[in-house]
Parts: sequence; C-alpha cells; structure tokens
Amino acid sequence: MNNKSIEKITTNIAKIRTPLRLVSGKTLPQYDLKYETYGELNENKDNAVLICHALSGNHHAAGKYQGDDKVGWWDNMIGPEKPIDTNKQFVVCLNNLGGCHGTTGPTSINPETNKVYGSDFPIITVNDWVNSQKELMDYLDIPYWQFIVGGSLGGMQAFEWTLQFPLLVKNCIVIAAAPKLTAQNIAFNEIARQAIMKDPNWHDGNYLSKGVFPNHGLALARMLGHITYLSDASMKEKFGRDLKKSKLNFNYEVEFQIESYLRYQGEKFVTGFDANTYMLMTKTLDYYDPIKDLSKSIKDRLGDSKSKYLIISFTSDWRFPPIRSKEIVKILLDNENNVSYSEITADGGHDAFLMENKDYFDVMRSFIKEVDDGF
Amino acid sequence: MNNKSIEKITTNIAKIRTPLRLVSGKTLPQYDLKYETYGELNENKDNAVLICHALSGNHHAAGKYQGDDKVGWWDNMIGPEKPIDTNKQFVVCLNNLGGCHGTTGPTSINPETNKVYGSDFPIITVNDWVNSQKELMDYLDIPYWQFIVGGSLGGMQAFEWTLQFPLLVKNCIVIAAAPKLTAQNIAFNEIARQAIMKDPNWHDGNYLSKGVFPNHGLALARMLGHITYLSDASMKEKFGRDLKKSKLNFNYEVEFQIESYLRYQGEKFVTGFDANTYMLMTKTLDYYDPIKDLSKSIKDRLGDSKSKYLIISFTSDWRFPPIRSKEIVKILLDNENNVSYSEITADGGHDAFLMENKDYFDVMRSFIKEVDDGF
Repeated sequence: MNNKSIEKITTNIAKIRTPLRLVSGKTLPQYDLKYETYGELNENKDNAVLICHALSGNHHAAGKYQGDDKVGWWDNMIGPEKPIDTNKQFVVCLNNLGGCHGTTGPTSINPETNKVYGSDFPIITVNDWVNSQKELMDYLDIPYWQFIVGGSLGGMQAFEWTLQFPLLVKNCIVIAAAPKLTAQNIAFNEIARQAIMKDPNWHDGNYLSKGVFPNHGLALARMLGHITYLSDASMKEKFGRDLKKSKLNFNYEVEFQIESYLRYQGEKFVTGFDANTYMLMTKTLDYYDPIKDLSKSIKDRLGDSKSKYLIISFTSDWRFPPIRSKEIVKILLDNENNVSYSEITADGGHDAFLMENKDYFDVMRSFIKEVDDGF
Repeated sequence: MNNKSIEKITTNIAKIRTPLRLVSGKTLPQYDLKYETYGELNENKDNAVLICHALSGNHHAAGKYQGDDKVGWWDNMIGPEKPIDTNKQFVVCLNNLGGCHGTTGPTSINPETNKVYGSDFPIITVNDWVNSQKELMDYLDIPYWQFIVGGSLGGMQAFEWTLQFPLLVKNCIVIAAAPKLTAQNIAFNEIARQAIMKDPNWHDGNYLSKGVFPNHGLALARMLGHITYLSDASMKEKFGRDLKKSKLNFNYEVEFQIESYLRYQGEKFVTGFDANTYMLMTKTLDYYDPIKDLSKSIKDRLGDSKSKYLIISFTSDWRFPPIRSKEIVKILLDNENNVSYSEITADGGHDAFLMENKDYFDVMRSFIKEVDDGF
C-alpha cells in the first residue's frame, strides 16, 4: 500500500453565471461549484482528469486538510505514484450541483428570494451535472479530459460525458455502475425517500427555515444504503451473528454488532449531510437512462465518440452486479467502441470500488499507463 | 390449477391456562391460541398436519369465510385434492403467540394489569412457539403430526419441532428457510424496527393506550420487507422502469410504477397488522439459531429424531437463497437423517413459496404421497 498523500490541495469555488437550462425544464440562473485540484495542468493541457463522485461524495477526494486527521474519500486511488498519479495528472474533483458541501444546492440561498432553497431547489439529472461540469471545464480552461473516472453514480456521469461531449473525453473509466437503475434499485431509493418524507421534521423539504432536521429519516435512509453497499459475505465476515454484549437482552436495544454498526453509521451521517441533497441524488439515480434520454438512440448518442473505455465491476457487488456493467460493455461493443472490461474478485460488495485491491489497482494502473503513453 | 376451495373452515380459540416459561426467562401465565382446522382427524389420529405461518401470516391459511372474497394465504397449497389434501389430511393452522389476529399478543389485555400489553408483551422465540403449539396439539388430542410444514419463518418452526419434540413429528417440510439469519438478514430487520421506533406515534410501544398508531414506520417496514420478498427479476418483469404517468414529473410524487406499488403495499398493510407484533416477529427471526440454542450440539438436539425431511428452496430467493437451505440439508446429512432436497427454478423470489408452480407442487405431492402410503 502506498501511504503517500497529496501535499498540495487547491480548494476553490467557480462562480458560474451562465444560466443552466435543466432537463426538468427549469433554469438555474447562476450557481457556485466547489472543487479541488491536485497536481498541475501541464503546458499542453493534455493531462486533466475529472473525478465524478457518487451519492454521498464531495469535492474532497484526496489528501488531508491541515489539522485534519482524515483523508479524502478516494485517497487510496489518487495521489503521488497512485493509480491516478498526481505527479503526472492534473486531477479535478467537484461537489456536484445540488450537493451540500459548498456547491449550490438545497442548503444555499436562492438569489431570487434571498431565502434558503430547501425544496425549491430543482431536481438535477446526470445530464445537468455533465453540463455544469462542462462549465467548470471551460472555467479552468481545460480543452479536453485525458480521462474521466467515477464509481457508482460517478460512473454514470463519466459514461454520460462521452455521450454528451464525445469529443471532449479521450478516455472513460466506469466503475461499479449500471446504465440505468432496475425496479429493485428504484425501490430501495423510494424507501429511503419515504423514510425522510415521513419524518415529522421534513416539512415538505423546508425544514431549515423551521430550524429542524429530518435526521431520523435521513439516518434510516443511510442505514438502508449501507446494506446495499456491503455484500452479504463482507457483513458475515465483519459482524456475523456476534453479539454486542455477552448475552441476549430480549428487548429492542442493540443485540447484535451489525445493529450497533448500522445505528452508528446512520447517526454519524446526519451530522454532515443534508436531507434534500440526499433526496435529490436518489432521484438523479432513478432518472438516469441514457438510452431513453433525449429521445435519441444510443447509436446517435455515441456516434461521434472516439473515447476509449474501461469498465470495472466487482463479483460481490449486488447493488450494481457485474451483469449490469456488462450491459454497458454490450452497448459499447454493439457500437464498435474501444472497450476493456474487468471483473474483479472482491468481497467488499458495492463499496469495493472505494477499497484497495491489487487486481483492481493493477487494472487501473495499466489502463492509465496506456493512456499516458499516447492515445 | 385446482380452484376448488375448502368448504368447511372450523375457527376456534384454545384457551391455554398452563403457564408458558419463555426462553427470555419471563413466564406467560395464560394465553389464547386462535386456530383453524380443515378436513377431519381420522380414527387412528394419524393424519394431522400442522401449518406454521411466516412473519405476517395468521391462522387463516385456506378457504374463504362466508361473504368474504379473499381466500386464506396458502389456499393454492391446502384444499381438496391440493398438495396438502384436506380430503385426506386434518390440517391445523394457528395464529402464533404474539400475533395480532386473535391469538394473545401485544394488542391483548394483560390479565395482570387489565390493560393492553403493548410493549409489555414478552419477546417470543421459535422455541416458545413450538412449546405453545405443543399445548394446542394436546388440546386437540393429536398424538403426533403426520407432517409439519412451513415456509420462511414457518420453516424454522417446522425444523425446530423436530429438534424439540423429535418423536412427535413423523415428517417435516421446510420451505424457503435458513437455519439462522445472516448479518444482512438481521440488518434488514433492524432497519424495519428502527423505522417503527422512530415513528413519533411509537411511544415506546404503548401507542394503543394513546389511541395512535405508528403507521408511517410500519408501512416503511413493510415496504422494505417487500423488496426482500421479490426477486430483482420478478420486479423487472412486473414493473421494470414503467412510469405511473406518461411523462416524468421531476418531483417527489410517484414517478415509477414500482414506487406506487410499494406505497400501496405499505398503506394496505398497516390497516390489518400491529406494529408491536411486527417488531416481535422480526426479533423471533433474529434470535433463531437452533445450533447455538439451549447450549446443545445439533447432534444432541437431533439425536432421537426419526423425522423424514423435505427441504425446498427457490433459485431467485435472495432473502434465503438455496445455499441457506443447503445448510439445513448438510446439518441433517451430517446427522444421518432422512432428507430430500429440491431446488425449484422460479422467478418469484422469496415469495415463490406462496405461488403455484408445477415443479414445486409436484415435489410436495410426491413427498406427501409417500408419507400417506405408510411411514
């Protein structure tokens, strides 16, 4: 394991003042995008990499802030001599529109009303994210992405970039993703949303103006998410049927370790995340359906793409199992795109995309080396 | 399909006045068991069959009440000339202790306080259920069960009977079950309980005395249950990504058919089920661990059993997949018990055990025919 972490983190806000016409039909007149960069854009401007985050991610992908103990959410992947090598690449990661970590979202002030957006913040789609990320790209004066990479919902953004701006993405890495959600995927999201909306502190999404938080609902949503991120096998290995105390209580207090873990995860999450953002991100996932989107065939959408793809899945991922990644592979093969596919044997479930694993990291290194060696 | 339904349903209440010492250490001084019988107990008293219900089941397994449109929950399986043939067998099905359909449970009056039990009702284990079912057996003057059958949590009871009263069960059919829950199974139950307990109407389980119901929480719990009862494939076939209306709303109203279905299932469920019973049944599931229970080895527990077993699993069941049923088979094989195993190809997920399926019903008929032909 490479423990070296990025030394220089540049955190900034891009104030975009070009109105963004959204897929929903609404328009966002202006917005801020909070982002970080690691490494340096070279003279040829051909080493820029975009990292797209998943449901609960943000712009802080790697390195450690001064005085902070914790590194960014993908620090094992991004850094000096790591697969995404900040000695070579210029890495950009932003908090997505609708987020709650510095980018304009439901917790921001609506400039038209001077009040917090709350539930007035429009629903954002993956297409909208890509359009807003394109604004950031222009703002940073990046002519094209050497590659875009993302896991889960991040992978959907990476894929969508190649459909929306096929000439601006040289390479695309889609990890632990699917081309669209199944009914079961949507069902899990719907229950998460119902948990939040049935919280008496929800107030139709305008809880901030009441000075309360639908934390019970948000915690439940997060607990449910966690089940789908872990595999049955990894839960078994980590917790099994281990008890919290030495004997059974026969009441509704924590009995098994897994219960304690889930309650802790739920409680921790609500201290740093906004319920409206969570709601919005689940809808973004539900809506993503690039083949149906914009009433264009995939052929029409992919037609011009010269992007080279790497698709990665994990054997124990049951949220987006290998078969779902293969759907993307098939779409690309049918369209005669250049695609590599790797199915990694891993016990970590959906979360495996965030974990260090030799095979996984070797595949990433090898693809990125080819990318570096010329395209 | 055989549409003939039972003509005569006998519904009754057994008033058990022998105190029941529970695994939790508590004692239930007295209790009522609501039960139904179909068919007739023959002179030799060798044709009695016990049906054990699952989490949300009850005593009304087959036939139709006068003036009612709906048949019992396992009417396709139980009836004249059906796999469990009421022309031959004397079928008994009870509402389990802790239930909310006529048997003593959290909604009953506690004779010691003359108030509704609510959360004072003790947690019941599978062992306790078997002990209370044994009381019903004595009450009905049944010397032994020709067979006991159950699916899911019902299968655990059937299995447990052969451990607890090995000489009183000639044959045992365990369908879509597991010998104990995994961490993931417990995790789903815990989230269901958290949903109920975080409902402001929960009042520590004493909601009835306040005249309210934690229906939001109970509906969420049921919705979550439904995801685990259906397979990804059956959801895909039934709902896919079909929209409720012709176009997207871009809000938090129902967008996809699957959302509509889940909300409906949640809302329907709360009109006929008690939250404390739901809580209790999930704990009963969590605690079941017959190998660990009572500090006896499985060999010690199974030692005397001459029961013949049929274990059935369904390919698309991801709540208790075939591998979990095979754990039961292995325990029995290691102990040199007589066991048959059948893995049925079915798309219905965990709920497949409630659905008509030729292979499944043929296996049931064939096993039961052997049972009838002599033991």
